[in-house]
Amino acid sequence: MTALLSVSDKSGIVEFAKGLLNLGYEILSTGGTLKVLQENNIQALDVAKYTQSPEMFDGRVKTLHPKIHGGILYRRENAEDRVKAQEFGIRDISLVCVNLYPFKATIERTEDFGEIIENIDIGGPSMVRAAAKNFESVLILTNPADYNEVLMRLQNNQNTLEFRQKMMIKAYEHTAHYDCTIANYMNKRFNDGFGESHFIAGKLVAPTRYGENPHQKGAYYEFKDFYSKTFQTLKGEVSFNNLTDINSAVKIASSFGKRPCVCIIKHANPCGFALKDTLIESYIQALKCDSISAFGGVVAVNGIVDLELAQEINKIFIEVLVAPQITQEALALFETKKKIKLFVCGGDYLEIPKDTQDFKHIEGGFVLQDSDSITENEVKNAKCVSKTQASESQIQDLEIAYKVASFVKSNCVVYVKNSAMVAVGMGMTSRVDAAKAAIKKAQEMGLDLRGCVLASEAFFPFKDSIEEAHKVGVSAIIEPGGSIRDEEVVECANTYGIALYFTGKRHFLH
Amino acid sequence: MTALLSVSDKSGIVEFAKGLLNLGYEILSTGGTLKVLQENNIQALDVAKYTQSPEMFDGRVKTLHPKIHGGILYRRENAEDRVKAQEFGIRDISLVCVNLYPFKATIERTEDFGEIIENIDIGGPSMVRAAAKNFESVLILTNPADYNEVLMRLQNNQNTLEFRQKMMIKAYEHTAHYDCTIANYMNKRFNDGFGESHFIAGKLVAPTRYGENPHQKGAYYEFKDFYSKTFQTLKGEVSFNNLTDINSAVKIASSFGKRPCVCIIKHANPCGFALKDTLIESYIQALKCDSISAFGGVVAVNGIVDLELAQEINKIFIEVLVAPQITQEALALFETKKKIKLFVCGGDYLEIPKDTQDFKHIEGGFVLQDSDSITENEVKNAKCVSKTQASESQIQDLEIAYKVASFVKSNCVVYVKNSAMVAVGMGMTSRVDAAKAAIKKAQEMGLDLRGCVLASEAFFPFKDSIEEAHKVGVSAIIEPGGSIRDEEVVECANTYGIALYFTGKRHFLH
Repeated sequence: MTALLSVSDKSGIVEFAKGLLNLGYEILSTGGTLKVLQENNIQALDVAKYTQSPEMFDGRVKTLHPKIHGGILYRRENAEDRVKAQEFGIRDISLVCVNLYPFKATIERTEDFGEIIENIDIGGPSMVRAAAKNFESVLILTNPADYNEVLMRLQNNQNTLEFRQKMMIKAYEHTAHYDCTIANYMNKRFNDGFGESHFIAGKLVAPTRYGENPHQKGAYYEFKDFYSKTFQTLKGEVSFNNLTDINSAVKIASSFGKRPCVCIIKHANPCGFALKDTLIESYIQALKCDSISAFGGVVAVNGIVDLELAQEINKIFIEVLVAPQITQEALALFETKKKIKLFVCGGDYLEIPKDTQDFKHIEGGFVLQDSDSITENEVKNAKCVSKTQASESQIQDLEIAYKVASFVKSNCVVYVKNSAMVAVGMGMTSRVDAAKAAIKKAQEMGLDLRGCVLASEAFFPFKDSIEEAHKVGVSAIIEPGGSIRDEEVVECANTYGIALYFTGKRHFLH
Repeated sequence: MTALLSVSDKSGIVEFAKGLLNLGYEILSTGGTLKVLQENNIQALDVAKYTQSPEMFDGRVKTLHPKIHGGILYRRENAEDRVKAQEFGIRDISLVCVNLYPFKATIERTEDFGEIIENIDIGGPSMVRAAAKNFESVLILTNPADYNEVLMRLQNNQNTLEFRQKMMIKAYEHTAHYDCTIANYMNKRFNDGFGESHFIAGKLVAPTRYGENPHQKGAYYEFKDFYSKTFQTLKGEVSFNNLTDINSAVKIASSFGKRPCVCIIKHANPCGFALKDTLIESYIQALKCDSISAFGGVVAVNGIVDLELAQEINKIFIEVLVAPQITQEALALFETKKKIKLFVCGGDYLEIPKDTQDFKHIEGGFVLQDSDSITENEVKNAKCVSKTQASESQIQDLEIAYKVASFVKSNCVVYVKNSAMVAVGMGMTSRVDAAKAAIKKAQEMGLDLRGCVLASEAFFPFKDSIEEAHKVGVSAIIEPGGSIRDEEVVECANTYGIALYFTGKRHFLH
């Protein structure tokens, strides 16, 4: 019984090797791993001695040898293979423990291409893949986290075929991640992130109870370790739809830096948003926009949820609350509510990764694009195209409305008054219909729109939406501009004395 | 100068080898490739002779040898490496042409696990990855489609570093695809498609002019070859947003089999749908639902577009027309319209792949789920929970409304009359608001809703939407049921003599 140990990450390798020796394994090892073992007085056979072929080219060629790969790959149940193995002095390598040169850590650390290339492991993946192929007879380990379980299983005769098969899958996942990372890195470096192939590679965080609907199986995957490390569940269980809603909610609520925002999401769209002086004020104002839709919604709070805020939130049924922190007192209060789910992510403020690329499934493939975002001075630099100019406080509201609009499904319109969203139209095929639906809702909610501002994520194709805006007393409007009827739109704004700003930048979101 | 040729797909290899010989290369080859070369009187050196190590274990070990990998990996600019290479009789392998055991074809052909495992290539990826790592000195080819360009370049001294770097990226893409396919296959076979890792691996079809917005770069990728082979552009250029809209449009229009449906999409949601006796009738009726939103929309026609239909479509500005075929006369007519884009996919009817899994980007990762679809008898087996029963023709309309509703962004309501959608509410945070907006629009369009049916993709939480439905004369309703207020909803339907059906299955779509 021979175990081949060749690891880049040396953590736990000494203890693991000791365990293997105690179980009667002979150890075969290379370069750095061998050195560590020897320093710890662990007897191991040098691969170079075994193969009678020296390590060459500064370690570029060590294990790529028939005595290694034959020892891993020969078919134990095949008599001819066994004879051949014996003839050539090939050992029965029944355990392979390999992890790879740290390519990912290297590209995160340096841009030195020579160093990056040197950190592409060749021998490692070959052994991992060979051992996985022969999982019927060979156990493959690629992660120090598995050493203990493996030792336990070996000690208790539980190195089953089923277990080796599980490790085989893990091994191919490992090599797949490795080459996806290399290919994506090269395409990012040399092809602006849009190469001949693109790989979206995720590690399972957890299955969800089901997908968008109960008859669909679902799960969520992460690129790095945001969900498994930073995103924490305090109460309840995150569902598939919670995840997509939380994504929208946290993106919006964290998009104003450290300011005390609250965003309420339902079906991936905001039905409430406010940025007042305190979180509690923000929550109360956000809820007013559409307190009916907010029922069963997802609330993101960009700050610490204390008892007072918890009491306010507790007044209606909120399905999900996500915040950077929830105080002990607040937690205790929420414990009395059966259904509310609580999640935290961030330190003092909400945190969410900002991926540089965005993708969408279309049947048979996907579309890939650079992520959209509003640039810092997009609203400040917007061009006033009307006779009337917006006041300082209107500009602030325009900034809020425009930013929120960039997160609402197109076609959308967002109305903001005194730093709170007072109406929102979303996801409709017609922009003016979205405007009308938004206004109708606000009126049903008893909200006074007079003096509010309006943002649209894409240009108004006709003046109709401006006319609707005038009817309810909108004072200032921001939109990208660019319609062939811009002149008509500007004229209409001037007729009603509305301040109108063009940003020159569209923010469709579907 | 030595070229190493070891290919599973032998197409073009003889001509390529001849070309290399003419350029002065010596050829090193293995097993099947060597046999083909020898049969064609091409002189090549057997790898086994070169390494003085026989092919072992039915070909499981052939090229995993220091004389092969040393020959690929040694650093040509490093004097010590050169000395060492000479000392060990290691050749300068400066061209590596390898393609891999057909793992993908094997899993598509058989479920025999032994055969599948045997088709995991070990030696091939090792050589590909090694050659790619040393792209400074080594040219790596993995695709017969590249043989001609490579020969041309070698003949014309254009084997540049830049070209080798391009081929290096291609090589890692190749091995990444290979291991993604293995890992996903194993997870599908053993973990229901939801393994510890998941890989979404796409091949570039084409860049789009931009992403969802002009400041975002974009491209589309495919899993197999639907877009590059089956989906054809006849006129214009597909945009990022066109692709997502076409995805929705074709899914809806092709979901009624061979029947003559027409679907009109705007911003990923349908603003028109009809299933009449002829395509032209379907188009005319589909357009009536919301002829204003249809302006600049995406039209999918589930049948051949002839001159008569083209003339009808030509009456307003449609941005995209997608159909299985467009006749020459129709094409000629469309040529007169500058802006319309024309695409075909399918034979006599629209075709689109049906992926078994669906995914959505969330920042830092993605959510993955089984694809949703309406089962064949879902509407037929729906339970009538009201006193009134639907008539045969109402059942037909219910079926259409329910199916279309499953493709509309939640919350949605779809109203159908005589096989045509007459109103649609979509993507709103409140279901009754969607109902109200839909009805308001239909009234503006001058449509008579009396006698129409209504479908909702999720349960009505309150009776309010039923009351709105009654006001406009809805005769039958279908929805999943399951609200705690179902009783109230049923009672309301009974009060108004509306037929009400529960399917028991929700179809949220976000």
